[in-house]
Amino acid sequence: MTRTVLESKSKTVVIGFDEPFCIIGERINPTGRKKLAAELEAGDFSTVEKDALEQVACGAMVLDVNAGVVYNSNPDPNITEPPLMEKVIGLVQGLVDVPLCIDSSVPGALEKGLETAEGRPLLNSVTGEEERLEAILPLVKKYNVPVVAISNDDTGISEDPEVRFAVAKKIVERAADFGIPAHDIVVDPLVMPVGAMATAGRQVFDLVRRLRDDLGVNTTCGASNISFGLPNRHGVNAAFLPMAIGAGMTSAIMNPVRPVEMEAVRAANLLMNHDANGSAWIGFARVLEAVQGGEGFAAASQAAAASGAGRGGRRRRRA
Amino acid sequence: MTRTVLESKSKTVVIGFDEPFCIIGERINPTGRKKLAAELEAGDFSTVEKDALEQVACGAMVLDVNAGVVYNSNPDPNITEPPLMEKVIGLVQGLVDVPLCIDSSVPGALEKGLETAEGRPLLNSVTGEEERLEAILPLVKKYNVPVVAISNDDTGISEDPEVRFAVAKKIVERAADFGIPAHDIVVDPLVMPVGAMATAGRQVFDLVRRLRDDLGVNTTCGASNISFGLPNRHGVNAAFLPMAIGAGMTSAIMNPVRPVEMEAVRAANLLMNHDANGSAWIGFARVLEAVQGGEGFAAASQAAAASGAGRGGRRRRRA
Repeated sequence: MTRTVLESKSKTVVIGFDEPFCIIGERINPTGRKKLAAELEAGDFSTVEKDALEQVACGAMVLDVNAGVVYNSNPDPNITEPPLMEKVIGLVQGLVDVPLCIDSSVPGALEKGLETAEGRPLLNSVTGEEERLEAILPLVKKYNVPVVAISNDDTGISEDPEVRFAVAKKIVERAADFGIPAHDIVVDPLVMPVGAMATAGRQVFDLVRRLRDDLGVNTTCGASNISFGLPNRHGVNAAFLPMAIGAGMTSAIMNPVRPVEMEAVRAANLLMNHDANGSAWIGFARVLEAVQGGEGFAAASQAAAASGAGRGGRRRRRA
Repeated sequence: MTRTVLESKSKTVVIGFDEPFCIIGERINPTGRKKLAAELEAGDFSTVEKDALEQVACGAMVLDVNAGVVYNSNPDPNITEPPLMEKVIGLVQGLVDVPLCIDSSVPGALEKGLETAEGRPLLNSVTGEEERLEAILPLVKKYNVPVVAISNDDTGISEDPEVRFAVAKKIVERAADFGIPAHDIVVDPLVMPVGAMATAGRQVFDLVRRLRDDLGVNTTCGASNISFGLPNRHGVNAAFLPMAIGAGMTSAIMNPVRPVEMEAVRAANLLMNHDANGSAWIGFARVLEAVQGGEGFAAASQAAAASGAGRGGRRRRRA
């Protein structure tokens, strides 16, 4: 039974075939968020604080932290990103007690994140590119952490799912050479926009099943890619997530502050028998009622969390 | 490739592994609708007319017709149901041009429906009960129609999916003895409420896959059973349908006048690559926009259908 164990200082989250779907909050990421990028360069962390608290209140079980700002004052991320990663991680883990997902394309920022994060974070990410394998896998081994493996390589992102499967297999094998077990590899099979490639959904469902059955690995994805360019994106995402979960997907990097997608994930947990007695669903239905009554989703979730309802999922408290 | 062909006088609908999900409208059924039952006994067919038009406008590709009223004036359905079935079918096929699903527990009503319906209707249903097999399969053969096969037998509805699979297999084999091919059997594996049986969702997904892979049959279900007794039922249904479709379910008997469930089915069609160029999704997104603007779903759908958008699915017109 494949189990990928993540830890904060005080909490354990398991990504696994028999666990509720692991929701990794994507919001703490300045990529494509100009306002947040400018704030971070100016030393203003108020949005980061808000995003951390809101995402956890809404049901994020892990928070992705990306500090990939290109400063106007200094365009070299190898210089600027490691200290910013350290700062943001310190801030976030002072506010919330969920495990973190350290997200960067800068190896120095990943290592700084690994030094700073308490517990057992998820590293995001390695790819099948040779340079990346050689840079990242030693870090994964040294810090004994799980890692997201994105199935592209030096030839780019293949549209052929066979190639993407082969890249994932190569990463798992190379990791094994470093002594890293398959249960610490969380493969991202790469979700293409279904509006651009009509087979994109079926590709992912088939790949997830094979990755699980043949490689025994957990899986993740940037879920909202599927709906890029389409009208009513939430509706596409809200069908994609349950279908991916039904195919065996065990986590996603997504926006937990969106009630439509969170409703879909929570219903899928219930239907996969990963919500004992339906208690998470019943708590979540109360949150949705408050939202229909005019309350904001984050505020309603926070209120429910404070009263002990609506958080759902299995939680393990510090002994 | 399994294809179950249904026809009205002028239109063909194919239930199949490579077709858009077949939505069978469930509304024309007095069971549990006291007002409709009273209307039918009084000879008032205005609700039937409204239900026929609205369901087709909202996207029903087939209409279920059930005339199972227990008259206050005559409690014997063997006497009252056949003429009512004839009347309702005549009325419905005068209003809309979709194939029908003739739904009754009274063999005389089924036969009257088969005599009355134009084209090639779906018969609903046979079970694994001996008496039912002997009464229904000859009708299926005589009229050369496809039939819904519900996987319960003389011992009742088993909670064990192995037993339900075995019952389905028995019905397929018995049908073969009558010369009825597997592609004319649409198996209903029976959906239990997930609130009462936590494994209900996974049972259906596993059964649908086996029914498809091992017996080569199409499948259907009463989709809303899954959420019986739970809060926010639409949210459960809207995750169940895409998951069932991803597992291989090819049709459902459902309420097409509910936008949440219809959105889920249309998104699943898109993600299964059963919506060429996303045109059905894009048309449907316009309908949802009108609904968000305050219009009723049926009215918005009717307007879109009238303007040629938003109907979606593949349609074959009379040559």
